[in-house]
Amino acid sequence: MKISYLGPKGTFTEMAARGLFKEQELVPYQTIPFCMDAVAAGEVDATIVPIENAIEGSVNMTLDYLIHKQRLPIIGGVTVPIAQHLLVHPENRQQPIEKIVSHPHAIAQCHDFLQAKLSGAEWEYMNSTGAAAEFVASHPEQKIAAIANELAAEEYQLVPLHENIHDYSHNRTSFVVLSRTLDMLHLQEPEHIADKTSLMVTLPSDFSGALHQVLSAFAWRKLNLTKIESRPTKTGLGNYFFLIDVDGLADDVLIPGAVSELEALGCGVDILGSYPCYQLVPQAEKIR
Amino acid sequence: MKISYLGPKGTFTEMAARGLFKEQELVPYQTIPFCMDAVAAGEVDATIVPIENAIEGSVNMTLDYLIHKQRLPIIGGVTVPIAQHLLVHPENRQQPIEKIVSHPHAIAQCHDFLQAKLSGAEWEYMNSTGAAAEFVASHPEQKIAAIANELAAEEYQLVPLHENIHDYSHNRTSFVVLSRTLDMLHLQEPEHIADKTSLMVTLPSDFSGALHQVLSAFAWRKLNLTKIESRPTKTGLGNYFFLIDVDGLADDVLIPGAVSELEALGCGVDILGSYPCYQLVPQAEKIR
Repeated sequence: MKISYLGPKGTFTEMAARGLFKEQELVPYQTIPFCMDAVAAGEVDATIVPIENAIEGSVNMTLDYLIHKQRLPIIGGVTVPIAQHLLVHPENRQQPIEKIVSHPHAIAQCHDFLQAKLSGAEWEYMNSTGAAAEFVASHPEQKIAAIANELAAEEYQLVPLHENIHDYSHNRTSFVVLSRTLDMLHLQEPEHIADKTSLMVTLPSDFSGALHQVLSAFAWRKLNLTKIESRPTKTGLGNYFFLIDVDGLADDVLIPGAVSELEALGCGVDILGSYPCYQLVPQAEKIR
Repeated sequence: MKISYLGPKGTFTEMAARGLFKEQELVPYQTIPFCMDAVAAGEVDATIVPIENAIEGSVNMTLDYLIHKQRLPIIGGVTVPIAQHLLVHPENRQQPIEKIVSHPHAIAQCHDFLQAKLSGAEWEYMNSTGAAAEFVASHPEQKIAAIANELAAEEYQLVPLHENIHDYSHNRTSFVVLSRTLDMLHLQEPEHIADKTSLMVTLPSDFSGALHQVLSAFAWRKLNLTKIESRPTKTGLGNYFFLIDVDGLADDVLIPGAVSELEALGCGVDILGSYPCYQLVPQAEKIR
């Protein structure tokens, strides 16, 4: 089985892909649209793309392309804790650090640590945390450190000078798996944390009252929502649709009931997927 | 007056800053947290940071830092249409293009155009659209083009080979202006499109029913919501808060009424700001 993911190597997306698909062939693509096109063209069986709070990937890109261009079913989800480490070449363990390289978002995520411990060091921005780790690995003569994850440390044989230097300890990135040919994922590991149904709901008229009505369809059934987000449509200003995640699979009685009720109210409802969600556990000790 | 913004030059953030603050001194900073820290430290009077759908800036970063670290009041907003152009050095107007340089998100935003017209060209990722334009300007000997906006074309004296090559014509990026010392913005231009009050609401208990109740407080007052987004708190899994934008300023009678009602229900409510929103108009003809 072949799975496309947003390259390069050593990023959180590869970490998510490896965590879900240990034995499968992972194929890096250069952009999120190309990852998804590869599924549509049959070059790969599935793709894994960031959907929430990713570092290198633009999540808006994923949602826009999924909704407007390639409506691939979501067959699974995975959450990866964001743990950033300060990595150096093994030869430079004892050296003072003069420059830090990483993706701009990763550098910003470690703002407090950098201010407190390395405020004198320069920064250089790289296109991904993986690219930064590769740069440090190939320049042992420079007194530099990369901010990157444990997978990058492993792949580029770097050593951590400081671990878990990110500002927010509960920060997570979520990914979804998209496929036209595969069934819903059923994995033994990583940890299965929830089942989810993702809906896209278009409102018939004005926002505030209509949204209130939409939520009634879920509330009186005691269906638990785990996410709601309004997004402008790409057809002009003033039009919105909603992305709603409901706890549970769509083969329950209640979700189809809620969907019928919404349609009766004049809403457009698309089920983007109904799927299990997994969670990778941080393994900081692995890199020691 | 000094305004901090996320550098480098030639990005959509600078375009937003220039559109709002024509006569003021604009000071680029390297990260969103530094932009905001500069306000808190009194180095600048205000900052302008991306809040929705930006290309180079991570919007999660802005919201996280605003909510958890530097609670600066929002005093204004501005929306900038995303218009990407294919820019070359004036000497290379007639040359075939062998390589395209830009920020990864900008390249992904022009996916359809690149597939249709330039599928043979290589790509090289840069840290921003502005940096890509600068690279093209300083390498006239290479057959390269940058994907960047009209401001970058102007600043680096590039010429557009193709204009408006982005896939979605209604794509926009929104920015907010944060300040502790300045009053709400009152500008003659650009175009004033709306007034907005941004609230952060923390729910007392379970998500689905409680959110429904929260929206009732707005719905029965006929207060129009223009955005709602659930976000996990950084204190652990399973806790959420909501970002809600209400149409209108908070000195109306209705918004304080809704806030009191929410507090009586046990919700935490913070007003992040109540402010006018402006809109820049695309000026593609400017770069010809």
